[in-house]
Amino acid sequence: MSQVWKDYQEENKVRFLEEMLDLLRIPSVSAKSEHKKDMLKCAEAVQKSLLAAGCSNAEVMPTAGHPVVFGEKIIDPSKPTVLVYGHYDVQPAEPLELWHSGPFEPVIKDGKVFARGSADDKGQFYMHVKALEIMSKTDTMTTNVKFLIEGEEEVGSPSLGKFVAANKDLLKCDVILISDSSLLSMETPSLDIGMRGLSYIQVEVTGPNRDLHSGTYGGAVANPITILARMIASCHDENNHITIPGFYDDVLEASEDERALLNKAPFDEQEYKDELGVKELWGEKGYTTYERTGIRPTIEVNGIWGGYTGEGAKTVLPSKAFAKISSRLVPNQSSEKITQILLKYFKSIAPASVEVSAELHHGGEPYLTPIDSKGYIAAAKAVKATFGKEPIPVRGGGSIPICTILEKELEVKIVFMGFGLDNDNLHSPNEKYNIANYYKGIETIPYFHKYFSESN
Amino acid sequence: MSQVWKDYQEENKVRFLEEMLDLLRIPSVSAKSEHKKDMLKCAEAVQKSLLAAGCSNAEVMPTAGHPVVFGEKIIDPSKPTVLVYGHYDVQPAEPLELWHSGPFEPVIKDGKVFARGSADDKGQFYMHVKALEIMSKTDTMTTNVKFLIEGEEEVGSPSLGKFVAANKDLLKCDVILISDSSLLSMETPSLDIGMRGLSYIQVEVTGPNRDLHSGTYGGAVANPITILARMIASCHDENNHITIPGFYDDVLEASEDERALLNKAPFDEQEYKDELGVKELWGEKGYTTYERTGIRPTIEVNGIWGGYTGEGAKTVLPSKAFAKISSRLVPNQSSEKITQILLKYFKSIAPASVEVSAELHHGGEPYLTPIDSKGYIAAAKAVKATFGKEPIPVRGGGSIPICTILEKELEVKIVFMGFGLDNDNLHSPNEKYNIANYYKGIETIPYFHKYFSESN
Repeated sequence: MSQVWKDYQEENKVRFLEEMLDLLRIPSVSAKSEHKKDMLKCAEAVQKSLLAAGCSNAEVMPTAGHPVVFGEKIIDPSKPTVLVYGHYDVQPAEPLELWHSGPFEPVIKDGKVFARGSADDKGQFYMHVKALEIMSKTDTMTTNVKFLIEGEEEVGSPSLGKFVAANKDLLKCDVILISDSSLLSMETPSLDIGMRGLSYIQVEVTGPNRDLHSGTYGGAVANPITILARMIASCHDENNHITIPGFYDDVLEASEDERALLNKAPFDEQEYKDELGVKELWGEKGYTTYERTGIRPTIEVNGIWGGYTGEGAKTVLPSKAFAKISSRLVPNQSSEKITQILLKYFKSIAPASVEVSAELHHGGEPYLTPIDSKGYIAAAKAVKATFGKEPIPVRGGGSIPICTILEKELEVKIVFMGFGLDNDNLHSPNEKYNIANYYKGIETIPYFHKYFSESN
Repeated sequence: MSQVWKDYQEENKVRFLEEMLDLLRIPSVSAKSEHKKDMLKCAEAVQKSLLAAGCSNAEVMPTAGHPVVFGEKIIDPSKPTVLVYGHYDVQPAEPLELWHSGPFEPVIKDGKVFARGSADDKGQFYMHVKALEIMSKTDTMTTNVKFLIEGEEEVGSPSLGKFVAANKDLLKCDVILISDSSLLSMETPSLDIGMRGLSYIQVEVTGPNRDLHSGTYGGAVANPITILARMIASCHDENNHITIPGFYDDVLEASEDERALLNKAPFDEQEYKDELGVKELWGEKGYTTYERTGIRPTIEVNGIWGGYTGEGAKTVLPSKAFAKISSRLVPNQSSEKITQILLKYFKSIAPASVEVSAELHHGGEPYLTPIDSKGYIAAAKAVKATFGKEPIPVRGGGSIPICTILEKELEVKIVFMGFGLDNDNLHSPNEKYNIANYYKGIETIPYFHKYFSESN
């Protein structure tokens, strides 16, 4: 079978790349209403590509927000069904001035495709479209395949929960397969076994009822920026351990075995630091970098503002200060519960000299997939088949908030089989996806279907 | 003499008010180049008003920046000379949407004039123009009078030092009189005996070389906002005492007597809190509100920004964070030395995971006038004459950076005789000046000249 797949891919590889570039040219920015037409255009392009790849049915299905693209190819109802989840929407491209080429004018350089959405997630879900084409055109399909490609992942998937609940039969499957994450490297393949959850809040500190002259009142009236700074500083102790009462209560500690396995992954600290341009790493004492981003929860300030931020100097004691603060969560923590703990904390530690209000932006539950599930085992075998090495199970630092909802509604496990790299500049200027990774993904996916089919 | 002054003022009071309103209608915003023409127009209006009031000579004199208006009336070279310092420039009016009426369309309501510059400082220096008119037209002048009205006070007086140094003979005088500060209240007159100095810096914290995904990297890379917040929080201890090494070294502690005198001033804490809309006051333990704003140095954050500050949520671990931080200084502290201490502190406490740069915006020295000087005594007598009460000597919280330079170049003491109120909304929307205070100032000023003349 494998030679047939290889030959087909080899014969069509240029087209496989060109088609992916066509998709990247559509500026499908879900956050911006000015791109509403582009979103529909992109959904229709995905629908068309699914039909061309061999789906017997593919539809652009409306939601309250941007549409979902559904497609399927059922070869035999008694065979297991793999549901591929992905998203055709992308992050805003700003700041535009930091891009070396247009974010929606893909450029190939040094074996990499530079464009917004190349790795997150158009280039990655499109590997599954091309893998379906290979299996379908060479008549070597081993499972039924369904596609659920949404258009709101980058804005927190507000419509997908309702969509999935209303279409359980249509989406019925035996496993969910997602390529929206990274490998440690091409030499050290890995599989994500979890994603961190998220609690994202905004805090507003109000001092005096108007901006004051910092000379006349400075020293006698609480400055909301100073208070906010103290509140943020108080979230961690000197070991960068989070100090908020109850924050760690539900954390499912990773076992010594899992930690040992996680740390087997090669890690070149100097290379990591050089790539980020920092002299020293930073984080919770007693944990390695992989642990800090994988098995430990965090609190990060994503934005802060208050007072005079223009050119030059203004001697103001401001009325208000704001911060956007988010927490990445690990298994067993509940997004709802942590959000309440954070909101309560920021309100409770404020001195009586200021008023504090805090509100939820959005959240998502952490997700962990068992490494003894049929899906994980099939993915590990597939990676072994094409990389020649067992993948290392790792915990992804990011969040895909919809995971918990998908698992709950469809009652199946999720397998993460991502082919990106951590330095793909996701959400940043100059996002890229290595062409070698794209081809390797297309090569690996058919093996997943084969091994998953054999195990059922 | 006093009845003559009173009568003249009574006969001309409507015109005195109307002329002040005319001056307020000129948008003389020194910080904005679009108002360059308005600045010149305002300077010429001041010149004209000085001539009309009785100056024998008044000129608009160029500087590298906005012009200075000089005027004089010499009655007898053997008599003492009073130099009135003031400024015709105003702060920018923004945010415009918070004004109840146009900032340059003066409105009279409840006995107050609402307009930018009404209290700071057009309405206040214009009292001296009208006082000159009274003395000149009633032939009751007791001193020579000079005016130095500059156009760059609100931008740190960058040209005035050079101007004064180059025009020492022209500006030669026996005392400098400034009305650019406040009374405790009309019932409790006071005289400022000092101004705080200023060190204003900007701090920039740089973490990774680009904005990062807070999931992929969060927990393993120092967040510059968090670090900046910790740096700000570290500036004070739990008693709001400043912790920066060397910060208090040169502070000239106020004597017990001075503190006792300062605290004799009536202070209604509930009224103060209500007016500012805060539940509790805040400040350095062991000091009263008057002490905190008068005799103690402070550190205030005037502005902060970093990361994502737009609508909604973005999960970014930012590359940079910034803060504008200023310190109000008290006598014997040196602006230059404190600036160096602040710059060194912020650089030295940064962990190796980030880079910190800090630069000076501007500064000014604290100023203290002796209460046994001839000028202060004359001012105290003048206030007693018209308010019927001894003024309380207080320390002003704000800064007039040019004071030290004026004293050094002209070798005379400065007397602050301000008639504003702390709630005049200086530098804020809806700046106002009470008409009663304006008239009271005009009534009081001739007495200053009289008593100062008698003591020389």
